[in-house]
Amino acid sequence: MKIVFIGSGNLATQLGLALNEAGQQIVQVYSKTEEHAGELAAKLGCAYTTNIDEITENADIYIISVKDDAIATLAEKVGRKAQQAIIVHTAGSIAMEVLQPYAQHYGVLYPMQTFSKNKPVDFKPIPCFIEASDDATLSAIRTLAESVSQNVVPATSAQRKKLHLAAVLACNFTNHCYRLAEKVLEEEQMDFKLFLPLIDETARKVAQLSPKQAQTGPMMRWDTGVMQMQMDLLSDERTRQIYKLMAESIHEDATK
Amino acid sequence: MKIVFIGSGNLATQLGLALNEAGQQIVQVYSKTEEHAGELAAKLGCAYTTNIDEITENADIYIISVKDDAIATLAEKVGRKAQQAIIVHTAGSIAMEVLQPYAQHYGVLYPMQTFSKNKPVDFKPIPCFIEASDDATLSAIRTLAESVSQNVVPATSAQRKKLHLAAVLACNFTNHCYRLAEKVLEEEQMDFKLFLPLIDETARKVAQLSPKQAQTGPMMRWDTGVMQMQMDLLSDERTRQIYKLMAESIHEDATK
Repeated sequence: MKIVFIGSGNLATQLGLALNEAGQQIVQVYSKTEEHAGELAAKLGCAYTTNIDEITENADIYIISVKDDAIATLAEKVGRKAQQAIIVHTAGSIAMEVLQPYAQHYGVLYPMQTFSKNKPVDFKPIPCFIEASDDATLSAIRTLAESVSQNVVPATSAQRKKLHLAAVLACNFTNHCYRLAEKVLEEEQMDFKLFLPLIDETARKVAQLSPKQAQTGPMMRWDTGVMQMQMDLLSDERTRQIYKLMAESIHEDATK
Repeated sequence: MKIVFIGSGNLATQLGLALNEAGQQIVQVYSKTEEHAGELAAKLGCAYTTNIDEITENADIYIISVKDDAIATLAEKVGRKAQQAIIVHTAGSIAMEVLQPYAQHYGVLYPMQTFSKNKPVDFKPIPCFIEASDDATLSAIRTLAESVSQNVVPATSAQRKKLHLAAVLACNFTNHCYRLAEKVLEEEQMDFKLFLPLIDETARKVAQLSPKQAQTGPMMRWDTGVMQMQMDLLSDERTRQIYKLMAESIHEDATK
């Protein structure tokens, strides 16, 4: 199958690299930003364009991996060029039906991972949630996804929204907890690297224990003295509010 | 050095096991709860008591590892029995000086990790922050700490408070983000295990990138449509508030 990538961001880059390595034939990259289009095309050894009207008509599958609110506009352009092809998007929170007006065969391939352009990632364990307009399209998307992931799972748009929400909580919010910790350390000129064993163990623990069983710390003991002191150490009002709500949420979860 | 453990909780258990394995001589465990005292004593192959007045007088170091508000009371009892010994506590947020009225030689050994009784942990990489009343005591605590950890760092009580706050953010809050994700998945009968690759990668990323560089997701794109939809999916008002504040905090951090 010939593949065109519409988009050249973090997800497009890592999915493109994984598909390329799996021997899939990526023929073209589109991005409105020449630098980004050229960069990903160089990594994939393919052509690129910054003009959506110049994408090739001859590909079998067009993978739209762009900001959520640009998906429909680009799908419409792609649909005009390639009426028989499969159009796929990769977004967690966008229903598959957004593609329906523009293609006969369409679907979703949502790899649930945090991607950065320059951080290589092992694609094999990444859960890829797939959905399609019809069985043949689902089969084609499954074949593509299984060439890079060992964990391909069908999911409806409604399920995928929940998965994406949970991913934001478990990944983006988690990463921000690391960032809030780093800010506290910066005040004392202490090195964030000291925290890597704690961060590793916190992540490893939930492979063996449920998050509820794994929880420790002052909120579990409901040590109000320590909690008040810690809130007083926080210099930012919003972070204090986050602390208070998270403390209450941990406590409520532990006591019911 | 002969060691007595005052306390038999998560930290006492894992520190005791590590010291035992390093060949240190733990002679007794005290806990007010017979079951806990007996359990840890069996693991360490030593005596135990549930009566603080029956702790041995002949040990060199007494490690108090109990709830924060019980430290002073127990230190006073230990100080009466063993006036020449070193008394150490293991708490992140309690100043060393809490021990000063009860001992000539005292200090702190704070291993910064999340401990559960039945989750084995590799002690070597764990940062252990130490502090002492005098140089000889610091040296003794350092020797003890270095027998189990390759990462022993002197820190003042003020620094230790900040370290503990940062640890609560990077570990307890992080673990609660996993828990909030799990709750969303439970609504769809989806397996939390699907999230382990995402959790692992989120933790691994910050060994290479700063948390700020590593951040991804709808808050980075400030995708208000997705954020509103995700908040609407949350069934609990407190979790919605946490979502809103975390979203704003990520956005503010990304844009300044």
